[in-house]
Amino acid sequence: MAGKNEVKTYGLAARDTSGVFSPVEFARRATGEEDVRFKVLYCGICHADLHSAKDDFGHTSYPVVPGHEIVGEVTEVGSKVTNFKIGDKVGVGCFVGSCRSCEQCSNDLEPYCPKRVMTYGSIDEDGTRTRGGYSNEMVVKEHFAIRWPENLPLDGGAPLLCAGCTLYSPLMYYGLSKPGTHLGIVGLGGLGHVGVKFAKAMGLKVTVISSSNRKKAEAVDRLGADSFLVSTDPEQMQTAMGTLDGIIDTVSAFHPVMPLISLLKPHGKLIVVGAPNKPLEVEIIPLLTGRKMIGSSAAAGIKETQEMIDFAAKHNITADVEVIPANYVNKAMEGLEKGDVRYRFVIDIGNTLVAAPST
Amino acid sequence: MAGKNEVKTYGLAARDTSGVFSPVEFARRATGEEDVRFKVLYCGICHADLHSAKDDFGHTSYPVVPGHEIVGEVTEVGSKVTNFKIGDKVGVGCFVGSCRSCEQCSNDLEPYCPKRVMTYGSIDEDGTRTRGGYSNEMVVKEHFAIRWPENLPLDGGAPLLCAGCTLYSPLMYYGLSKPGTHLGIVGLGGLGHVGVKFAKAMGLKVTVISSSNRKKAEAVDRLGADSFLVSTDPEQMQTAMGTLDGIIDTVSAFHPVMPLISLLKPHGKLIVVGAPNKPLEVEIIPLLTGRKMIGSSAAAGIKETQEMIDFAAKHNITADVEVIPANYVNKAMEGLEKGDVRYRFVIDIGNTLVAAPST
Repeated sequence: MAGKNEVKTYGLAARDTSGVFSPVEFARRATGEEDVRFKVLYCGICHADLHSAKDDFGHTSYPVVPGHEIVGEVTEVGSKVTNFKIGDKVGVGCFVGSCRSCEQCSNDLEPYCPKRVMTYGSIDEDGTRTRGGYSNEMVVKEHFAIRWPENLPLDGGAPLLCAGCTLYSPLMYYGLSKPGTHLGIVGLGGLGHVGVKFAKAMGLKVTVISSSNRKKAEAVDRLGADSFLVSTDPEQMQTAMGTLDGIIDTVSAFHPVMPLISLLKPHGKLIVVGAPNKPLEVEIIPLLTGRKMIGSSAAAGIKETQEMIDFAAKHNITADVEVIPANYVNKAMEGLEKGDVRYRFVIDIGNTLVAAPST
Repeated sequence: MAGKNEVKTYGLAARDTSGVFSPVEFARRATGEEDVRFKVLYCGICHADLHSAKDDFGHTSYPVVPGHEIVGEVTEVGSKVTNFKIGDKVGVGCFVGSCRSCEQCSNDLEPYCPKRVMTYGSIDEDGTRTRGGYSNEMVVKEHFAIRWPENLPLDGGAPLLCAGCTLYSPLMYYGLSKPGTHLGIVGLGGLGHVGVKFAKAMGLKVTVISSSNRKKAEAVDRLGADSFLVSTDPEQMQTAMGTLDGIIDTVSAFHPVMPLISLLKPHGKLIVVGAPNKPLEVEIIPLLTGRKMIGSSAAAGIKETQEMIDFAAKHNITADVEVIPANYVNKAMEGLEKGDVRYRFVIDIGNTLVAAPST
């Protein structure tokens, strides 16, 4: 039920570790002075949503309404909002709040603010728990909304708000965006396929690295990767030793990383953006003798997210998506768990999400 | 025996995995056009020398004559030598050759040249095995000799040619040399104590991190560290969380690194310059959420080594050394193995090395 100064909202929630989604009703705050309120049109399904629904990380508070790859249309703006008007398209990514005053916030690095508020599952400034884009509408501070470029498709663009940032931001931060840089991308899934597109648009030479040659044609012929390397083929790995300036490793399952380190040139960088649930085993001597490093990266700040979305629009980059109706979300989660999606499910919230029968 | 165009040389060699040193006689090449020949005056004992003497890394070829922290006085120069004349003081560090034409060499990064020739135990361009500074004289290409500053002590300065580079180079490369940067240095031994001196001369705020408080007074009162952190004290570690911009970890024994990662601010860097013989266990989530990284670094290039030595001379930085006679080397190795040295043994080669009795 919605109280005074609250607006009734509905969506899809997981209610226990089964991770099964069912309709839910909850309240969002009324539109504040700095707020943008919008009708959700599309929301991508990120692997993090699945982890959260099943409480794989042990910090889910049920019911959880996931979704942090959200595109919508503005329906109301607060009196102090200057960048958005009713009818504008907006995007919201992984976070919806931060302190706005610390060193991180001052440097447009809100994801690293100790008081950042994640788009779902965090405690917001008003003490309520945040709920994500698997819902009919959202309200966020203007600062955390992304202007949506005219020509960028809403459905294929939505996943960029998480997956796009996850690939774009480390390429920029770790100095791997210069044309001619030879980049390896490990894993061709939701993150990896977006990485190939961004890297090629930046003018990089891209080698997709995978444990089998199953995705070779897809990587090279369709996505435009320059080459394909099978990590389980010792001969191919030997030949490729010392050839890469950097590697973005998108694989979440535990895997040995030292063979990847050996693919790097001196001063090469391995950036792990998947999140294996077991510690990686890192030998120092190969890092030392080649002055190599292992880094990682979270989501991008708001300024960089806008930059990434504008870059995507300019270069016609979207994620490859399967658009699904809201009532298909449980089947979609099964597919995601099995890796049976090419490459990202996006829920058509605007046309298919209906309120719970009881309301 | 020395053949034609060879010069008889003598020194100290380990002859088997016992690592025991005894006098040895061998030949060095005659002075070539680009060569500088010099009488060795002092040579530091690096931990790598001990590893090499005992074949801890499995690639020692006996007899081995170690030593890569070498200072001497020029006795002869080749016809094309322009930077040195007889009587000049010179230094030689970890390597004495590289291809001089690859990408690494072109960027003054000779230690990362695939054809680099280490000061001892490598195969030189002429096919002979290189022998280090535990010997009465050396001959090296001019390019690989360091001009020794007038005011820098020869004995205390010698260890900088390895230990100084190992600390100075990553501070520069990883952007940790800006005044005000808060640096942690793990371990207060041969590397760590030199690190404190360089870091303080750069204007950094330095916290020495050690497993006990045994070295606290030494670190703070004598070496000038700003603070001291006992890594086995959970309360101290908790208080220090998220306070450091970077950490140089000099410890060679296996140790958990994630507590060190937690000491870093967002975007902080852990640089491991010790070489643990077991893989480190690295969890990705803490790297990801803080955009932190783990790097390493080998010796510095010749240009940077000269810069480091000149910086040391300007700021009166030397290693704290125990100068020993050549016939004390076996006792010194025992002390080094037990960590019983403050902080570096340096052999007074010039005054105490004598030829083998048989010659």
